[in-house]
Amino acid sequence: MRWWGWGEDGHQVVLPDAALGLLRESLGVDPAARRGPVGLEEVRLPDARLGEEMRSGLEHVAGRDHVSQERQARILHAAGKSYPDLVRMRSGDASSAPDVVVAPGSAREVQALLRLCADAGVAVVPFGGGTSVVGGVEPVREGFAGTVSLDLHRLDGLDAVDRVSLTATLGAGLFGPEAERRLAREGLTLGHLPQSFEYSTVGGWVATRSAGQASTGYGRIDELVEGLRLVTPAGELAGRALPASAAGPDLRELVVGSEGVLGVICEATLRVRPLPELRRYEGWSFRSFAEGCEAFRVMEQAGCSPDVTRLSNEEETRLAMALASRGAGSDRAAKTYLRVRGHEGGCIAIVGFEGEADEVELRRLRTAALLRGGGGLRLGRRPGERWLATRYAGPYLRDELLDRGVLVDTLETATKWSNLVHLHAAVTEALHHTLGERGTPALVMCHVSHLYRSGASLYFTFLARQEAEAPLDQWRAAKSAASEAIMAGGGTITHHHAVGRDHAPWMRAEVGELGLELLRAAKGRLDPAGIMNPGKLLPG
Amino acid sequence: MRWWGWGEDGHQVVLPDAALGLLRESLGVDPAARRGPVGLEEVRLPDARLGEEMRSGLEHVAGRDHVSQERQARILHAAGKSYPDLVRMRSGDASSAPDVVVAPGSAREVQALLRLCADAGVAVVPFGGGTSVVGGVEPVREGFAGTVSLDLHRLDGLDAVDRVSLTATLGAGLFGPEAERRLAREGLTLGHLPQSFEYSTVGGWVATRSAGQASTGYGRIDELVEGLRLVTPAGELAGRALPASAAGPDLRELVVGSEGVLGVICEATLRVRPLPELRRYEGWSFRSFAEGCEAFRVMEQAGCSPDVTRLSNEEETRLAMALASRGAGSDRAAKTYLRVRGHEGGCIAIVGFEGEADEVELRRLRTAALLRGGGGLRLGRRPGERWLATRYAGPYLRDELLDRGVLVDTLETATKWSNLVHLHAAVTEALHHTLGERGTPALVMCHVSHLYRSGASLYFTFLARQEAEAPLDQWRAAKSAASEAIMAGGGTITHHHAVGRDHAPWMRAEVGELGLELLRAAKGRLDPAGIMNPGKLLPG
Repeated sequence: MRWWGWGEDGHQVVLPDAALGLLRESLGVDPAARRGPVGLEEVRLPDARLGEEMRSGLEHVAGRDHVSQERQARILHAAGKSYPDLVRMRSGDASSAPDVVVAPGSAREVQALLRLCADAGVAVVPFGGGTSVVGGVEPVREGFAGTVSLDLHRLDGLDAVDRVSLTATLGAGLFGPEAERRLAREGLTLGHLPQSFEYSTVGGWVATRSAGQASTGYGRIDELVEGLRLVTPAGELAGRALPASAAGPDLRELVVGSEGVLGVICEATLRVRPLPELRRYEGWSFRSFAEGCEAFRVMEQAGCSPDVTRLSNEEETRLAMALASRGAGSDRAAKTYLRVRGHEGGCIAIVGFEGEADEVELRRLRTAALLRGGGGLRLGRRPGERWLATRYAGPYLRDELLDRGVLVDTLETATKWSNLVHLHAAVTEALHHTLGERGTPALVMCHVSHLYRSGASLYFTFLARQEAEAPLDQWRAAKSAASEAIMAGGGTITHHHAVGRDHAPWMRAEVGELGLELLRAAKGRLDPAGIMNPGKLLPG
Repeated sequence: MRWWGWGEDGHQVVLPDAALGLLRESLGVDPAARRGPVGLEEVRLPDARLGEEMRSGLEHVAGRDHVSQERQARILHAAGKSYPDLVRMRSGDASSAPDVVVAPGSAREVQALLRLCADAGVAVVPFGGGTSVVGGVEPVREGFAGTVSLDLHRLDGLDAVDRVSLTATLGAGLFGPEAERRLAREGLTLGHLPQSFEYSTVGGWVATRSAGQASTGYGRIDELVEGLRLVTPAGELAGRALPASAAGPDLRELVVGSEGVLGVICEATLRVRPLPELRRYEGWSFRSFAEGCEAFRVMEQAGCSPDVTRLSNEEETRLAMALASRGAGSDRAAKTYLRVRGHEGGCIAIVGFEGEADEVELRRLRTAALLRGGGGLRLGRRPGERWLATRYAGPYLRDELLDRGVLVDTLETATKWSNLVHLHAAVTEALHHTLGERGTPALVMCHVSHLYRSGASLYFTFLARQEAEAPLDQWRAAKSAASEAIMAGGGTITHHHAVGRDHAPWMRAEVGELGLELLRAAKGRLDPAGIMNPGKLLPG
């Protein structure tokens, strides 16, 4: 993974002319100007603060090969992949780098490392793929004798595959593609596909209460967790793997979403499914976002939702069409088709079905009848297949936009159906207003991507010309305005990005003072020295 | 509700001759001998321990009419409805009675009462319908200046009905039938129908992490909770009503199943559904319990489960046929039908579909194809309709059996599919062995009643001749043997009855020492004086 962005070197995104035109016209960005990140050798790192005794203690537990204080390792573990993370890293600021990166090989080693660090007052930051977009893996250096980034990639086992019960125990450090490859060998799939899939891990998904692109069908990660193994400074919390229980509060749900502040999730027993025989994705159009939302609601409440359900608002549809542009002739034909049917300027939706072939066809027909009844126009398989081909492209595109001086960030929420269109308008307006007032007018795109009987998620992407002088002030103003609009408008501060550092200021409004006290009580018991991922989840 | 049993006076169960014969032959019970409960005037109550100051404090908050120290009120709140509860109450032992019964009229009154009691060292037992079968509402008198049973029946509001989002906010004290009646007026249903439905409450369902007879389709209560209001001695924990969130651990899941030890659930925002247009229930037969389990697994994992799914083992099928006996001629015809098809001595299953008529028919056809493929034989609608008519009959029947000197109790667990038949055998064997050794051979019946992709629940009913001298020793031996078999066999100590007092000794094995510590940490923060429902959920 690039230290300053997404993916690996050599991966190059090319923006089509239509997209460049849109950036110029809507945002006032000069598409010719490019500014890349500083060179690796220019990155500024704080001195590593680890004494010889501590270092040899870490080496004793994890092995000399798995303890690194090398420059590149520290830089790679200095931050996640949020917009402010990337802005800082690209400018050469790695002041948050850990003192050392340790890669334990087993839950037992994790336990020994946590004890060692707790005794020495050294902070520990569990690190999976490092793809957090909310400041979830950035070390906090102040107040600790040192900081260890605990890289979990060696916890990569796949055990206890139970094809009858459809469960499997996965190591926390397994990356998405490898997890799916190994499950596929058993004829199974987890089906958990966040946009970060290529670079995120099982442990990260569980720690952040993640949702994937197919979670409407396959279920959020919290619905997929059958059992857990959490290693804490105070010992191990082993949730038994069970389909259901009424034996008191569900402690699994206290671990899912705990973001490393209680301990290290070392493995998870997850509910898997047979590999689908068929995947069928298709596009639909609605005349407006409100019309599409209503059609999605009726479909979901009828129990007829596909596995993937996405509905873009008008702005996102317009940008998606610009990005997908295949030349003026083809664009004109598509626009004419939509205009003739009264769908010009409307919204595109992607629906995807996975499963046995007969089953997929049956579900597709029922869903199609409901979507058509809700005003939808079927666009065929091409938009669906195009979406599938580019489903993980967003973060790569972001690097290209950053190079061109564009502020680009995403944020997400969920609320009940009766409030969905209202919240969409409120957040959109907050971003337009705040960025417009700064003289950097915004493009605000949004899609609905996860459906529940009672409501749905909203996922916003916003773009503006980056303020060269104070890009982080600009970002902070926009983020705060959107977050305030979300909380005032009845949404949750995060539907699947988690809390990290960036959402922590809104946790009091989210769970109340007593809710925070409950989380602190749990942390106090499991992590009495307060070394686990400081500064995350709980407001300071 | 009768103080010594289930239902109201005047409700009389008549056991058919075939059932009486089975009791005599299998258990050695003399069906002619009957012994009812002692008279109400013979019940022994401890003196009420409440000082004048405390009583006037309670009256000041809740109003004089809602504070009672009358004999009958105290007796009715002395115990739940477990077998040991009933054995004690029927013998006139109400030594666990609370000192006073208080019925608050609002969450604000609950808050004031909890503060008052915390200051005075008075224990508080939240009381909904009082139907706990695990000792969940029995006051613990020792160590406290007094005990208040907090009867929540006045918290009976139905608010914030959102027909778009399909949610409604229900008062904790609403009883099942009234909750459904009022939702039905809005064209809605919750569909949560535990066997205790007629006498249990919304708050009780949430506090005990309940599952209902239709939970395979409608979802367990934990899946139906959108938001909660928990009043604790330390203040109010208000979970925002949201369809989903990634804002840290899910604190709702810490409240669901908290059994009154953290505070009082005053209301819950629940996910509801449109009233079904059609209900269609039918019976199926399988040659063996194992065959039926396998067919149910395939059906569930194909996503084709009906809303109600029950599969009785051979023993339960035999007793159900005896209870349903409509005379020798009809019985013979049914047996012949099954024998001709190779299903004699097999297992009966009930499947029930609810929803829009077209939808029900479609689902029914798909399910039928899978069940038939799994060896099932369709028995038509009569068994389904008979089950519907008697779905809440179990507890009434229990009173009749107790009158006739029969030990009768139920217990339940859940485990993964690959372990289901093994666990069924282990628990059955433990009960047969333990009761057989005491010279009181047992009938052990079981059914699967809740399906999950990864596993299912097992619900056992066991009968034996009651030991006249030491009925509770006999029960304790059987209960312990079954619980040990469950824990050793990979099940959960409870799938939907909750923990209460009776399962608390197995909570260490269920959640581990650190799990207990987490629960204690939460309790310590919300209930620092330790007055909330002492003796429940957590082992002493």
